[in-house]
Amino acid sequence: MTPDEFRAAGSELIEWIAQYMETVEDHRIVPDVKPGEIIAGLPATAPEAPEPFSSIVGDLNDIIMPGVTHWQSPGWFAYFPANTSGPGILGDLVSSGLGQQGMLWATSPAATELEMVVVDWLVDLLGLPPAWRTTGPGGGVIQMSASDATHTALVVARHAKRAGIPSGDMVAYTSSQAHSSIEKGANVAGYGHVRLIAVDDDYAMSPAGLESALVADRAAGLTPAFVGSAVGTTGTTAVDPVRRIGEIARREGIWHHVDAAYAGTAMICEEFRHHQDGLEIVDSYTFNPHKWMFTNFDCNVFYVADREPLIDAMSITPPYLRNRASDSGDVIDYRDWHVPLGRRFRALKLWFVLRSYGAEGIRHHVREHVRLARLLESRVGADDRLEMVAPTPFALVSFRHRSGNDATLALAEAINRSGHSYVTPSQIDDVSFIRVSIGQTSTAERHVEQLWDLIATEARS
Amino acid sequence: MTPDEFRAAGSELIEWIAQYMETVEDHRIVPDVKPGEIIAGLPATAPEAPEPFSSIVGDLNDIIMPGVTHWQSPGWFAYFPANTSGPGILGDLVSSGLGQQGMLWATSPAATELEMVVVDWLVDLLGLPPAWRTTGPGGGVIQMSASDATHTALVVARHAKRAGIPSGDMVAYTSSQAHSSIEKGANVAGYGHVRLIAVDDDYAMSPAGLESALVADRAAGLTPAFVGSAVGTTGTTAVDPVRRIGEIARREGIWHHVDAAYAGTAMICEEFRHHQDGLEIVDSYTFNPHKWMFTNFDCNVFYVADREPLIDAMSITPPYLRNRASDSGDVIDYRDWHVPLGRRFRALKLWFVLRSYGAEGIRHHVREHVRLARLLESRVGADDRLEMVAPTPFALVSFRHRSGNDATLALAEAINRSGHSYVTPSQIDDVSFIRVSIGQTSTAERHVEQLWDLIATEARS
Repeated sequence: MTPDEFRAAGSELIEWIAQYMETVEDHRIVPDVKPGEIIAGLPATAPEAPEPFSSIVGDLNDIIMPGVTHWQSPGWFAYFPANTSGPGILGDLVSSGLGQQGMLWATSPAATELEMVVVDWLVDLLGLPPAWRTTGPGGGVIQMSASDATHTALVVARHAKRAGIPSGDMVAYTSSQAHSSIEKGANVAGYGHVRLIAVDDDYAMSPAGLESALVADRAAGLTPAFVGSAVGTTGTTAVDPVRRIGEIARREGIWHHVDAAYAGTAMICEEFRHHQDGLEIVDSYTFNPHKWMFTNFDCNVFYVADREPLIDAMSITPPYLRNRASDSGDVIDYRDWHVPLGRRFRALKLWFVLRSYGAEGIRHHVREHVRLARLLESRVGADDRLEMVAPTPFALVSFRHRSGNDATLALAEAINRSGHSYVTPSQIDDVSFIRVSIGQTSTAERHVEQLWDLIATEARS
Repeated sequence: MTPDEFRAAGSELIEWIAQYMETVEDHRIVPDVKPGEIIAGLPATAPEAPEPFSSIVGDLNDIIMPGVTHWQSPGWFAYFPANTSGPGILGDLVSSGLGQQGMLWATSPAATELEMVVVDWLVDLLGLPPAWRTTGPGGGVIQMSASDATHTALVVARHAKRAGIPSGDMVAYTSSQAHSSIEKGANVAGYGHVRLIAVDDDYAMSPAGLESALVADRAAGLTPAFVGSAVGTTGTTAVDPVRRIGEIARREGIWHHVDAAYAGTAMICEEFRHHQDGLEIVDSYTFNPHKWMFTNFDCNVFYVADREPLIDAMSITPPYLRNRASDSGDVIDYRDWHVPLGRRFRALKLWFVLRSYGAEGIRHHVREHVRLARLLESRVGADDRLEMVAPTPFALVSFRHRSGNDATLALAEAINRSGHSYVTPSQIDDVSFIRVSIGQTSTAERHVEQLWDLIATEARS
């Protein structure tokens, strides 16, 4: 493809995306396809000869699009959002075009230093501990997903405890409401044991439960190594008592990691920061700009309070070969901050988003989503057929039908059958409920009203 | 950013990238910046108010671009390439615009099934074992990097051996010339021991050396669990004896992973496939379309001969909760094929590339790069001042100055000072040499001739 062919095809696809933005609301959110249907539309072997770009775009429209789930629809209330935005898409485009590989400072000074700048900006924007700036003992790094960040934290915690202790004797703790990535990451990192600590009535981890488990495991000769707490669980956005868990972790000498994958973005508004009280005594923290900060997937930020144990675990360069520039903090070689070696210039899209929206723009959207969530919560509260199952600290509304699980699941199915609104049915213990996550880039009041009309109609009494 | 603003900004950036393609050759490949210089040009805090797109593009040009290392220059002969191409960039653009999150088949049937299709296409294109198709017992998955793939293989191998054996007693084997990702992955996965097996005169792993190490480790009560061989090492593109290592691995019951990160692409040409003889008895394999297949970073493909142990290690869903569709192979939930949960629609860019180039287009470029490498090799061979240090099975030319290390390093520095050509000085044991990797998307004969003129001038006798 010559530069001129790229100009033509690129302009066509920019227009294609703009039209997608304008019409995404018209699509049924979940495609009506059966397993194998998209495969059946595609040839079994790659083409031998080059094909014209028009054929590719034709098949994109005719074969791929019918199998797309419309995460970008304003009626997307499922899971948590995975938002795109114009600036995010365009920052990613420039990253693709420049083709930087930022494994070392030297292989792309721009990619390395812009990443240092944006992760430092976020420390201020989100009210995180100043020691996490790259100018301090800590620092942040962009990874692909919160699962990667959590796995990294688990490996660092294991590595820091390693002297003579088999990883099979190590224990990781988190709440029964924690994201599955903690249990998976612990398995991948070789921990022998994962304890899912009981939660209170608001689904927040019980510090007393954690202490009991620690006592029992120490008595059994095991080695507690890691505790993961959540600021905003996946199930109900419950907030664990970060400070109390942090105090226990400090006393016990175990690594404390905080998963704020979804709710981290909300901290750009000061009124939510009481939920992250105690961060100055945690060891690592992660949140996903690709969820609620309008920066398209993949973009996760992982912070450590002290970068030395991270680099010790992730660098294969022995200390006597490290260069002075790296150790002084003048130069960061981000390959030593995570598992992969190669790395894309992901900071660009975050930079584009932060500048295009400005802090006030992001605050505006977050507050609007939270306002809409409280509006929906008030509607639920005023309807005798329905009841909330958890508080709404952010923009996730968790409710159920008072008639029980069958009625709740039937309601979720009715909503999802509508095509214009999509929610996630969920369950804690034996109680089914409906999660309505309000946070898609373009969700406005009319979309929440449309959802509520549907709920009010379909919730049989 | 409204759709119309996106149209305007998007068109501007498509033109910006087209111009970058047209002018990349005019840039000095390595930027003349000192640590901290880019940071110093940027504000210490994020903007409070939204900024116009023109300001962002202005700063991109004035602050970011002076710190960019031009991996996309046709004079890029360093490391291995990290190629972009028009179709790759545009496939990635569509992925950004659609914002799919393909963790499950259900969260994006299109992303899941197109991925199955392109990894199956590659099985045929590269002459890989048919059992690796997703219709067989194996299958492929797109990950971020070969480091991620290798780490995954190490975890699966450890998991398969786990019954009562501490990971600290497990041993991973690879050659002294293997990529650092094997040693790093083994550390991250908690292996207690990594053995770097000696190589022969062509830098290929010695099977006898591997057997001796296995005997010694078994005698010491350790558990061999993993061996990684390379088809194309990073140092000199040496090819390990895959079949012989595979036979040893089968006999010993250890996992055999093949790293063809760079050279895998060459297998699209039948004349190189003798280098991968024995793949039908390996357990896993990885190569990077983002190196030599014109698909921009990040795009790694990881194959397993049998997907069951992979899913056993990576799924946190216990067997009794698996759904029949997943186990039958009708539906793949790719979250269970790697560490992360969320995943981008990376198959799109690979699909765009394979269709735009066609198999014959990729073959043409690979063969041209290999031809140019052999041309350069012949020039080196005819110059009394220089000598080759390793064979040239693919498109990496490894040579040195006969006067010794100082003269070799001085020559490398002279090349890199030119600004128009960039090579990697390297070292094996005590011998310094120069790696010339020919494979950038737009590298043509004139660029290699320009490099050779520089070498001939600067190689002081």
